[in-house]
Amino acid sequence: MEKRSHNMTMLVDYYELTMASGYFECGMQDKIAYFDVFYRKNPDGGGFSIVSGLQTIVEYISELGFSKQDIEYLRGRGFSDDFLEYLSNFKFTGDIWAIPEGTPVFPGEPLVTVRAPLIEAQIVETYLLLAINHQSLIATKTNRIKRAAGDRIVMEFGSRRAHGESAAIMGARAAYIGGANASACVKADIDYNVPAVGTLAHSWIQVMGDEYEAFKAYATLHPNDCSLLIDTYDALKSGLPNAIKIFKEFKPEKMSVRIDSGDITYLTKKCRKILDAAGLEKCKIIASNSLDEYLIRDMLSQGACIDSFGVGEKLITSKSEPVFGGVYKLVAVEEDGKISPRIKISENPEKITNPGFKKTIRFYDRTTDKAVADVVMLADETVEDPYEIFNPEHVWKKKQITNFYTRELAVPIFEKGKLVYELPTTEQVRNYCKDQIDTLWPEVLRFENPHTYYVDLSKKLWELKNSLLEAHSF
Amino acid sequence: MEKRSHNMTMLVDYYELTMASGYFECGMQDKIAYFDVFYRKNPDGGGFSIVSGLQTIVEYISELGFSKQDIEYLRGRGFSDDFLEYLSNFKFTGDIWAIPEGTPVFPGEPLVTVRAPLIEAQIVETYLLLAINHQSLIATKTNRIKRAAGDRIVMEFGSRRAHGESAAIMGARAAYIGGANASACVKADIDYNVPAVGTLAHSWIQVMGDEYEAFKAYATLHPNDCSLLIDTYDALKSGLPNAIKIFKEFKPEKMSVRIDSGDITYLTKKCRKILDAAGLEKCKIIASNSLDEYLIRDMLSQGACIDSFGVGEKLITSKSEPVFGGVYKLVAVEEDGKISPRIKISENPEKITNPGFKKTIRFYDRTTDKAVADVVMLADETVEDPYEIFNPEHVWKKKQITNFYTRELAVPIFEKGKLVYELPTTEQVRNYCKDQIDTLWPEVLRFENPHTYYVDLSKKLWELKNSLLEAHSF
Repeated sequence: MEKRSHNMTMLVDYYELTMASGYFECGMQDKIAYFDVFYRKNPDGGGFSIVSGLQTIVEYISELGFSKQDIEYLRGRGFSDDFLEYLSNFKFTGDIWAIPEGTPVFPGEPLVTVRAPLIEAQIVETYLLLAINHQSLIATKTNRIKRAAGDRIVMEFGSRRAHGESAAIMGARAAYIGGANASACVKADIDYNVPAVGTLAHSWIQVMGDEYEAFKAYATLHPNDCSLLIDTYDALKSGLPNAIKIFKEFKPEKMSVRIDSGDITYLTKKCRKILDAAGLEKCKIIASNSLDEYLIRDMLSQGACIDSFGVGEKLITSKSEPVFGGVYKLVAVEEDGKISPRIKISENPEKITNPGFKKTIRFYDRTTDKAVADVVMLADETVEDPYEIFNPEHVWKKKQITNFYTRELAVPIFEKGKLVYELPTTEQVRNYCKDQIDTLWPEVLRFENPHTYYVDLSKKLWELKNSLLEAHSF
Repeated sequence: MEKRSHNMTMLVDYYELTMASGYFECGMQDKIAYFDVFYRKNPDGGGFSIVSGLQTIVEYISELGFSKQDIEYLRGRGFSDDFLEYLSNFKFTGDIWAIPEGTPVFPGEPLVTVRAPLIEAQIVETYLLLAINHQSLIATKTNRIKRAAGDRIVMEFGSRRAHGESAAIMGARAAYIGGANASACVKADIDYNVPAVGTLAHSWIQVMGDEYEAFKAYATLHPNDCSLLIDTYDALKSGLPNAIKIFKEFKPEKMSVRIDSGDITYLTKKCRKILDAAGLEKCKIIASNSLDEYLIRDMLSQGACIDSFGVGEKLITSKSEPVFGGVYKLVAVEEDGKISPRIKISENPEKITNPGFKKTIRFYDRTTDKAVADVVMLADETVEDPYEIFNPEHVWKKKQITNFYTRELAVPIFEKGKLVYELPTTEQVRNYCKDQIDTLWPEVLRFENPHTYYVDLSKKLWELKNSLLEAHSF
């Protein structure tokens, strides 16, 4: 049987190995390089994204190293003995800065910056991108769904439709960070303390044959917290009457019915009426069935009576936009101890990179505590009040900001290969995310045509970028 | 640091544990149940899907078992000591049948059937679904892309945009099965012998600073097979002239240029002309940049000169339709040694399940060797020539088929918990897939409005289904 191993060092694109070997053969392995992870567009036309994936990156970087099996594979592919000797002692010795998980972020901002010997910085490309791209996608999508649901509960039920194991597990964690209240995924609870919940499937009722008997068996085992799935045969004609009979017999402290098919708006309104008429006002109604933020908003606006949403495939795959397009670009190398910025040019202006070793500063208004602008600038720049920001695409659009305090978004994660960042718990990340979203203006939170939050370049960075563009122009 | 473990037994939805514990407390743990995995709709409106995921399922079932840590977690969640004792000796003791990976399949067919003690059959639900759903999705999508590309090479470059580790690795394997010629993902090569390829990124050119010098360094290291990425600064004004200079100096046996941005159709046509004029007719052109089957078809119809496609995010996430909606439904239980069929009813007729322990028979025409129809029937049925098929939705649509041979699609995988299936290599699965697709009529292969292949129910199954519907009608 072909068999998987669990070390993820070889989860690289082959070209990273080709280049690494090339740098080694050219004697460039100790050259220091700077790479940024950034993205260009918020999914679903949203006003911001929520960055996630750092926990996974820390696990990966900490475990980085080539096994004997890896080395033998590479020998078979023709890499030189000297290079393989170098790889067999390989570990990460560089610096990494990252914006903490759960932070609202915007296009063009360096989410992760790697400063390391060239080969090390190149080898980690694929893994860093896939962690950030996947988890930021799901955290961002879930936050949209949670915003549509308002104060109601959102449960992530998508494992079965996830793109494999880690999509389910890390997806459940990202969903929790983005605002989901719980997940069906037990492994996400064991590994990352994401509260796992679940009651019964249609199969429970089908096995027992008789719906009332099936409900009764469940209620006997869960007399205080009884949740019944009522649409195995017919929600209104069979499931709900049977559930009401059970609730009256067992008088559970907590009770709910779940509907997983049919017209949810119609059915939940009907259910609410019938439950209330039966004196079961405190019985909650749970709905699931291909939901997302748009459907939830529509159903609620039509008066659907839902206390809790189970959200599956459209969350765990971010179905309406399943790609978070983060990229990893070289922005500088060190030459004679000095930082020499690099640029990647493209026919599409938005694909041109911001050169140099940079930082992102978020400006908060002192009176409202709301975030008013982010400025990407060179790492050695300082900020003084008042500060003039300007739009890098329309440079005549200028604005003086004053009465602010600032925060540098990225924090040190690794220094000379050593982990210097204390990873927060998933719960802490989730709370932090909630607090940070409260610093955004409601206009930025809109689903459609949100206000474009200011993400500007400092004058110095803008001038550097332009000088490099000039130097490479044809 | 919160930390992941690698055993996937706990990758269950919590409700499976709730139900398992319920069955145990009711003394039903030895009751034999039958579950089917099936799906309802081909992705992207296609005419068929390619099933994949069995390798992963075999690995999972073989490793199934609760660790001490798992048991302690469950104790903390309030499960009974007796149930935990039962779980600590848990392994899979049932039977599994499955349609081999790489087989073209159709909606409504049981892709996997599990016959096992109720708890075992219930616990494996989530994992079986996520393996089949993810990998069938990617194999199916890749086959569409490969069909659009025709005889040209398709390389899977999507790891960085995959939904986490297993989405990248198992996605690369599924892509290879579906017809991709290679992948960038090295780990898919190590774990599953998917040929990994890759040359250089923009960073190689940026680090070296001067494009010509960067190309020269690469050519020096790869003098016989030299692939150059020409769009770091300007493909036509800088990259291509520099590449041509290099090719003339080094005269590599194999050479290619790659373009990763801009208007690929325009640029590749231009490149082809310039290369040919320079006497480099044998230089290949590789294109990558958010491609899928639709773009590839359009570009080729406009005369794009491309020998090889690098396909990334739109393949690895199946962006146009990122969900393969496989479900896992109870179809029967055994009572007093006899199979008692079960049905799940829904307001949506297409969501009503096919009850009973079943098999799928594919009919091939003896003259053409083409597949003409599939019939889902009860496991003990036999087929005689001529055979009358009829459309289960429009029962007046009947057809006599004759001069055929048949094949039962599913094969035994586990018998009484023992693996009885010899897993083919990835290469064998890929070749088998190609052969099987050749048995489909071209009309079934169309991207849009394909011919609906016949998937019918046997008369006996249809009658059983109707009798159960009658029995549950309100």
